[in-house]
Amino acid sequence: MKKIKIKASSHEYDITIGHGIRFEINELINDSYSSIMIITDEVIENLYLNDIKDTLNFDNITTYILPSGEAEKSINNYYKIHTRAIEAGLDRNSLIIALGGGVVGDIAGFVAATYMRGIDFIQMPTTILAHDSSVGGKVAINHELGKNMIGAFYPPQAVIYDIETLKTLNKAELRSGYAELIKEAFISEKDFLNELLNTKLNELTDKQLSEHLYKGIKIKSEIVEADEKESNVRKYLNLGHTLSHAIESELGYGKITHGEAVAIGMIFALKLSNIKYNAQLPNESFINWLKINHYPLNIPLLESKKLIKRMKSDKKSKNQIVQMILLETVGNPRIENLPDEFLIKHLDEFIKELENL
Amino acid sequence: MKKIKIKASSHEYDITIGHGIRFEINELINDSYSSIMIITDEVIENLYLNDIKDTLNFDNITTYILPSGEAEKSINNYYKIHTRAIEAGLDRNSLIIALGGGVVGDIAGFVAATYMRGIDFIQMPTTILAHDSSVGGKVAINHELGKNMIGAFYPPQAVIYDIETLKTLNKAELRSGYAELIKEAFISEKDFLNELLNTKLNELTDKQLSEHLYKGIKIKSEIVEADEKESNVRKYLNLGHTLSHAIESELGYGKITHGEAVAIGMIFALKLSNIKYNAQLPNESFINWLKINHYPLNIPLLESKKLIKRMKSDKKSKNQIVQMILLETVGNPRIENLPDEFLIKHLDEFIKELENL
Repeated sequence: MKKIKIKASSHEYDITIGHGIRFEINELINDSYSSIMIITDEVIENLYLNDIKDTLNFDNITTYILPSGEAEKSINNYYKIHTRAIEAGLDRNSLIIALGGGVVGDIAGFVAATYMRGIDFIQMPTTILAHDSSVGGKVAINHELGKNMIGAFYPPQAVIYDIETLKTLNKAELRSGYAELIKEAFISEKDFLNELLNTKLNELTDKQLSEHLYKGIKIKSEIVEADEKESNVRKYLNLGHTLSHAIESELGYGKITHGEAVAIGMIFALKLSNIKYNAQLPNESFINWLKINHYPLNIPLLESKKLIKRMKSDKKSKNQIVQMILLETVGNPRIENLPDEFLIKHLDEFIKELENL
Repeated sequence: MKKIKIKASSHEYDITIGHGIRFEINELINDSYSSIMIITDEVIENLYLNDIKDTLNFDNITTYILPSGEAEKSINNYYKIHTRAIEAGLDRNSLIIALGGGVVGDIAGFVAATYMRGIDFIQMPTTILAHDSSVGGKVAINHELGKNMIGAFYPPQAVIYDIETLKTLNKAELRSGYAELIKEAFISEKDFLNELLNTKLNELTDKQLSEHLYKGIKIKSEIVEADEKESNVRKYLNLGHTLSHAIESELGYGKITHGEAVAIGMIFALKLSNIKYNAQLPNESFINWLKINHYPLNIPLLESKKLIKRMKSDKKSKNQIVQMILLETVGNPRIENLPDEFLIKHLDEFIKELENL
């Protein structure tokens, strides 16, 4: 069992990583809560919900089961969970547990942030991807016009990461999670990047996975501590995300996994970095790694104009100017405001290049 | 022009009170915002929106006009305002101005708290009642099952209170606002209470109104500074509110003004205080004042069981036990958890007494 402590502006919390620790949650959860609501999805319900319910030393447990998928991070589900919480009598001294991937964590966290103006919640991520979203307090739901447009900064009371629950992930989810790990490596540490680019996902060992997650969370947590509200360095974590958010909402949420879209966004960011700074980034070995591990790069043809319109309404853009994270070198990210002409020209090129990858 | 400074946990902000200061807002608003969205309702739109738009030194102003009334603090309107904000290109550096009463302030504030995980907002209250809701950072929308159930603690950047805009208030709104002023007096200061109980609302002078508002805001701001997140003393401000919330949601929002419902809730709280502590509270002179000023006390007959069910799901109740604020003396409020039998007995009595008032 490993622990990483995070100092949020409102309170400190632990991220605990370990094998089978879902059976030890009572030691990690304050026993004074009046009641608990576990929010999960239909897949995780079948796999792990009973483990948690049976383990918890609480009589007063309600559950809310969401359908699976990014499309469920909707205002309708958000309101329905509030309804259930009120009907179940959750009060300000109740706890919400988000048991699942990023979708569950994001919507459950946003419910917790706003139920009676905020109650405690705990993240229990069950995907690799969620190592990223569960740490740092970003919670949100999607708007039809943009991903995560409605949300809050609301740190959890704890993150409990049972990596045994990652064994049931399918290949696409594995790829999705590793894209975010690679992103963390790109913005901070060459050695970690090389280690990841030398990892074959279909030969992954438990030990490797555990180490990669620990390193990724460590990077993430240091950034979040330095800039909780994303006024500067936290933006680095958006490497690849400006384009990926546009792709995801243009295709319709859930058509491609988040991390797979981020992978495409990162190729584009590396391309622009090479153009702008004449940076010597490992584009080829990265693309190669993506191909070996079967990342979907031939996505349906997208119009650059539509994508750029989406990028302009991204939370990072200011005054309708698209902001992206580029890299001078591995470990040296920069925040760049990019003019429309520059972006259109290279995005058109990029879309054609993607077809031939 | 008078100023009261409030120290919130995240930042300090000023409450500025003055005659005609809507024409001086440029001096009170940071000029570096990328764009502004003014949220108001259809009544205030006709009265003051152009004054604000014409005065502001900004090109990029969007407006959102809500229908009037408590029923508009809905999840649907909340989502629609987000839609407009995205379509208008509001970014993280934009400002929302809430121009109106408590309904506008609450929903606009909650949009600001959650748009792209939070942007700045300014309260410009146009009712007496909103002297209370605009100060202290409570923002929310209603759930069908309970008032203000979905919300956040999110302090504004400034409160700009042009008391000239209070001249257009109707009688019910005047009563509604004064009920909250009396509440502030009840929990803190006998002299202020006596002053208010000696004020006839139909003979109110500008000078009196201005002084009463200043005193009320001063009381409120001191409490909020001491306990921003409502873990103890801020609860005192809920005097009269446990029952009033239940009455409002039982009747349907907007059927009676908020303050008028609070007035009824306060009579009940005084009654219980006298029973429980043998307190010598000025019930009679308070009821007398309410009658002289035409507060509606003969509301449609309500069932005590239904009201108590509502009271149990109030944000202040814990473990399904109703919590109310009672008074040992004027200026000495207490938080009390009240057993169901006690409550049902006296609420039944109270409903009958109300009929004969």
